[in-house]
Amino acid sequence: MRPVFYVSDGTGITAETIGHSLLTQFEGVEFDTRRIPFVDSLDKARAAARTIREAGERVGKQPIIVNTVVDSQLIEALAESGALMLDVFTPFIQPLEKILGVKRQPRVGHAHGMVDFAAYERRIDATNYALSHDDGIDVHYDDADLILVGVSRSGKTPTCLYMALHYGVRAANYPLTPDDLEESELPKRLRPHRKKLFGLTIDPVRLQQIRQERKPDSRYATLEQCRREVAAAERLFRQEGIPALSTTHTSIEEIASKVLASLGIHRHMF
Amino acid sequence: MRPVFYVSDGTGITAETIGHSLLTQFEGVEFDTRRIPFVDSLDKARAAARTIREAGERVGKQPIIVNTVVDSQLIEALAESGALMLDVFTPFIQPLEKILGVKRQPRVGHAHGMVDFAAYERRIDATNYALSHDDGIDVHYDDADLILVGVSRSGKTPTCLYMALHYGVRAANYPLTPDDLEESELPKRLRPHRKKLFGLTIDPVRLQQIRQERKPDSRYATLEQCRREVAAAERLFRQEGIPALSTTHTSIEEIASKVLASLGIHRHMF
Repeated sequence: MRPVFYVSDGTGITAETIGHSLLTQFEGVEFDTRRIPFVDSLDKARAAARTIREAGERVGKQPIIVNTVVDSQLIEALAESGALMLDVFTPFIQPLEKILGVKRQPRVGHAHGMVDFAAYERRIDATNYALSHDDGIDVHYDDADLILVGVSRSGKTPTCLYMALHYGVRAANYPLTPDDLEESELPKRLRPHRKKLFGLTIDPVRLQQIRQERKPDSRYATLEQCRREVAAAERLFRQEGIPALSTTHTSIEEIASKVLASLGIHRHMF
Repeated sequence: MRPVFYVSDGTGITAETIGHSLLTQFEGVEFDTRRIPFVDSLDKARAAARTIREAGERVGKQPIIVNTVVDSQLIEALAESGALMLDVFTPFIQPLEKILGVKRQPRVGHAHGMVDFAAYERRIDATNYALSHDDGIDVHYDDADLILVGVSRSGKTPTCLYMALHYGVRAANYPLTPDDLEESELPKRLRPHRKKLFGLTIDPVRLQQIRQERKPDSRYATLEQCRREVAAAERLFRQEGIPALSTTHTSIEEIASKVLASLGIHRHMF
């Protein structure tokens, strides 16, 4: 396996994000990936270079560095490892400096480091909101940005938390219970908020697996029950014109991104 | 404000992550950023190009595209917008193809798209774990990967949820109550798990602000109470040799990254 190191003067999240996206384009090649965050001194850069060189020697392959360190002295120290250096920021700095007419100010650990309190508060506030409006516990939807609707275990909670943490969006969720689904109309408390609704659906076979792990051998986890609930939920979404998405083959990031795009909610990522 | 577009055939998360990291290096320049995800057809690329061109014309500035679309035909269509094109993957593909000895397989929407069920399950399982082990409610710490310890509102819950969603780490948290802190020793139920503990601390003035918003004019939100709790918690961390970190000026990403590095937990990001 080819050793790959995500090296950063901050958390390494940018390096890992782009590195992961690059490596997945080489299907069939096996990589041994590792993060080396907070490389913000010459000593740490030299130590990282040693680690990287040794990893390459161990398997007899040139290692790869996906690098977001911005200090040129530290980059030189990292290059001593003999790795192929993919410098994530370098190719874009010059064109940006030219179009903006200013020089960049390299600030160590800036990208994912210090944050302003207002942004932090929005994330925390949204996370608390998602927690207190999870599974229909709290029903004050007036200040919700959106409400995810779906049967139990269709993926509502993690999606709400992800949107809260990353977009500061106040995402509530409402579980469609078997009782709700028998009514075959929108539950009363959701009706005033129709424009905020987004439906999550899921393949019944997959749902059955998830529920089986949660509550083994319960009626709740039978395929028949899952089929009935999912069919009723999908019917409700169609009938009420609620936009919906299947979570079966979709990552949390992708669900979140599609929900926000569909409801026209434009927020920056944190 | 200079218009900037994060354009992707998937969620746009990679484009936005690197774009944000690049733009923060140009302090003082104002950007009007927008995400255009799921650009996976010629029609969508042309529509995006029109949007981008118009945004530039409106403010009389050349727009910037931070692009992760991989299909060359779609890239050409985007270039029709006249924007400065920062193509995030392009500079790295050739060196990677050379070192790996294989051609990349451009797969639309691959990077943040379909996920295997095992990875999805790890994230969901970890998220459920974080939810059920939040604020000391459930005390089965045997299968915790780590336990965050700190006074109320020091940042434990969002950090646990972030680590669960992004690293699939089972992160519990234990709130140090005023009663715990009077004991000036490690609460009994934490003692068997000493190696999993990480302390979060916070500036008392900042804590006071956060608590004041939560429970206005309570004893809990007085500066004196915050000072006393934080001092006792920090004393406990020192005395028990628990690694600790102040969350005051630290982003959730950075806290998570430092906690994992400190406890020697190596996980890939999702």
